[in-house]
Amino acid sequence: MPSFMPPQDKIKTRYHYLRVKKYLDLPPKSNTVIYHRGGVTHRRDDTDVELDFRQESNFFYLTGVESAGYHVIFQFSTDTIYLVRPTVPLEEQLWKGIPPTDQQLLEKYDVDIVLTENEMNAKLQEINPDIILTMDSTNVAALPPTILPKIDASLLGPAIHEARLIKFPWEKDLLRYTAHISSHAHISLMSAVGRRGSRHGRPFLMNESELEAEFRYVCAKSGLNRQCYIPIIASGERASVLHYTDNNKWIPSDNRHALILVDAGGELTCYGSDITRTFPVTGKFSSEARTIYNIVLKAQKAVLDQVRPGVFWRDMHTLVVKILTQELINIGILVGDAEEIIQLGIYRAFYFHGTGHSIGLDCHDVGGTDIGILSAMKTRKGYPLELFTRPLQANMVITVEPGLYFNDVSIDMWTAASSPYKKYFGTEKIEKYRKVGGVRIEDTILITEIGIENLTIAPKEVNDIEAIMGF
Amino acid sequence: MPSFMPPQDKIKTRYHYLRVKKYLDLPPKSNTVIYHRGGVTHRRDDTDVELDFRQESNFFYLTGVESAGYHVIFQFSTDTIYLVRPTVPLEEQLWKGIPPTDQQLLEKYDVDIVLTENEMNAKLQEINPDIILTMDSTNVAALPPTILPKIDASLLGPAIHEARLIKFPWEKDLLRYTAHISSHAHISLMSAVGRRGSRHGRPFLMNESELEAEFRYVCAKSGLNRQCYIPIIASGERASVLHYTDNNKWIPSDNRHALILVDAGGELTCYGSDITRTFPVTGKFSSEARTIYNIVLKAQKAVLDQVRPGVFWRDMHTLVVKILTQELINIGILVGDAEEIIQLGIYRAFYFHGTGHSIGLDCHDVGGTDIGILSAMKTRKGYPLELFTRPLQANMVITVEPGLYFNDVSIDMWTAASSPYKKYFGTEKIEKYRKVGGVRIEDTILITEIGIENLTIAPKEVNDIEAIMGF
Repeated sequence: MPSFMPPQDKIKTRYHYLRVKKYLDLPPKSNTVIYHRGGVTHRRDDTDVELDFRQESNFFYLTGVESAGYHVIFQFSTDTIYLVRPTVPLEEQLWKGIPPTDQQLLEKYDVDIVLTENEMNAKLQEINPDIILTMDSTNVAALPPTILPKIDASLLGPAIHEARLIKFPWEKDLLRYTAHISSHAHISLMSAVGRRGSRHGRPFLMNESELEAEFRYVCAKSGLNRQCYIPIIASGERASVLHYTDNNKWIPSDNRHALILVDAGGELTCYGSDITRTFPVTGKFSSEARTIYNIVLKAQKAVLDQVRPGVFWRDMHTLVVKILTQELINIGILVGDAEEIIQLGIYRAFYFHGTGHSIGLDCHDVGGTDIGILSAMKTRKGYPLELFTRPLQANMVITVEPGLYFNDVSIDMWTAASSPYKKYFGTEKIEKYRKVGGVRIEDTILITEIGIENLTIAPKEVNDIEAIMGF
Repeated sequence: MPSFMPPQDKIKTRYHYLRVKKYLDLPPKSNTVIYHRGGVTHRRDDTDVELDFRQESNFFYLTGVESAGYHVIFQFSTDTIYLVRPTVPLEEQLWKGIPPTDQQLLEKYDVDIVLTENEMNAKLQEINPDIILTMDSTNVAALPPTILPKIDASLLGPAIHEARLIKFPWEKDLLRYTAHISSHAHISLMSAVGRRGSRHGRPFLMNESELEAEFRYVCAKSGLNRQCYIPIIASGERASVLHYTDNNKWIPSDNRHALILVDAGGELTCYGSDITRTFPVTGKFSSEARTIYNIVLKAQKAVLDQVRPGVFWRDMHTLVVKILTQELINIGILVGDAEEIIQLGIYRAFYFHGTGHSIGLDCHDVGGTDIGILSAMKTRKGYPLELFTRPLQANMVITVEPGLYFNDVSIDMWTAASSPYKKYFGTEKIEKYRKVGGVRIEDTILITEIGIENLTIAPKEVNDIEAIMGF
């Protein structure tokens, strides 16, 4: 039995439509329809191996349907939602089972009428819409050719993205559940490494792949049978590589500074989570590792303390940059005036990604550059302020994920003999801390009316982590 | 530490080339090259979520490379293998890590020379081949346009398929390992259900998804971090649905006949396994379930007893059909003359798939209709004998997987009032056994010089299964 039961309520996709409709700002009785096609199954290369199917996010938002081969039509004038089901030949039913009946579909999903593909075309001809709204990525091959000139692929995308940015209660329930279960998976990894730590004097032979297996298992046992993204299980120097996903190296047992950075989150009915925890291989942080870890933790907590509706994300990023820079100066890794180092973007030798992003049906959810809330940095020096132009709002779900990395490529680039920035780096101190590899601490949080609800419940204080690991 | 260590030897892909070359039967010094491009990474729909990468099977066969973005060239005249690596920009190295050096690639793979994509084009122009052999599915976009007219996409495919059909020692080692570990995963599922069986008088609440999680976990802990195909975890009536992969239903606890059919196998470095075990929900087969189970087991063991080099697969299928038909007549499910029932294909009401297939880098591996060894049935009545035209050979790896299914769609079709075959069915007896759902027993086996090595070590005798489950 799953240790926790996922939220059982139906996702009320009708409200998703009504919100999208509001953002479209068209005359409410206009003869408009939205058409969107769900994902179809794919096979691997030229084989008959079926690939794991995961519904396209916008289609899931509009229908709640996780299966392949469906379409949906939304008729503006009557607010009617037509779910179009695939026709499954009898022969295929022998192999794949009897598909749900129309009545079962109506009970399961928040739609009004179920149609077959043939009926869909007749219905569209009957409605005879003036305009058909689609996503620019929508496959419209199933529509009758006569209707294609009426397609507008520009209006719908921004409206759906706006709608998805602010989460409904049932979306928050799912995101809370995935973050809670994923937090438990993180704890179980700390605990698993703790039990096997080299401190016991036993030979320590553990592969990153085992931790990935453990993480997926804990998630799947509670219903999160898919990961929101490929987990990052990065031990030792690999903790400095932001998107390391090989997860197939032996965890170093001969470096007492070594950390394991785990960036992973499960997914339930397409809603995901994104959480990073970093913990020591030995179960106890070395003095150097603790120093770097606590700098990152300080920056992360500073953001969590300040995030609330009305705050600009660019200010949160600036806050992180200021704390990281000042602390790196304090321990001699950076040398010079903090303001100058920030202006020149030199802190980016050790912190070269954004401080967070919106999350929901996608890991890097809507609300990036297209909407202007959050964005990863695009340039090497500094960050394009113009992308962070809108204040945060209640019911956004975002990540807060500062980090510090001793990445060889980055350090070599910034401290090369030819680099004009060489003088800002305390080379000796860099060597002292280099073996720490990298630290990232990431929570998935919900913005509330008065501040935040931290959906992430995995511990992150040094003492708590060491306690879980057996110290 | 993994409970077992996977084979550590390098896959000797040079021998793969030499065998392919032999089958191509071109003049050995002809100015010919093979060009093949490996898989590239994909993202999900219009998001930046990277999909799990799995190398294209033929490319893996030719190179042993599991990473994305590579190409390979094989020069006939000198037997030289050129591995072409992707060029990774510095910016990307920050995020994905430093790629292996040419020297590391040469040490890891069985190739002679490492080239960049630019060098590849220069090399091709230098060789100036008369003919470039590609697969019909090969993406040739990276080749210089001047060279495209020299492409032949017809010869290479059949030669690679012929080569892949007969396994080299290192391939057998990998297939043996994946089958052994997958067998352990099957045992762990029997054991997990046994511990929670309703016989303990405890409330039995277990979802198929938990068993999928367990199966993947046991595999992944021993290095099989990918499944060869989407697992089938079918409980109760779903055991009659051949490719049921939803794996999200509650296991029935109110049907003492109910079985769980698990068709799943892990994959290691692209080599997979395909194993099915069927066991009772309660830990003990009901009398009806045991009867059906033992019929299938009898058919499976009959094949395993006879398979050896020189045997025709069509005869093995006929053997299965004969046993199943006679036994179904014996228990009154089929009524009439066995020979007549077989001629009319009426047994197909309960057995509507092939008896096995080749397995290797793909689950349904080469050697199907294209080569003529094995094939699933294509017609409803009987099977096209002409597809089974070649005798089995040593070092083929195949599955043996008879089954019996009480599938509603199938039974309704055959026994409908309008069906001319109605009289051949013992309707009352069908009802007696219907609740058993379905049984399939599948082993992955290696054909040896004198018979077989059964790579599958999960028990399949009724007594052994019940013992594992706690009886």
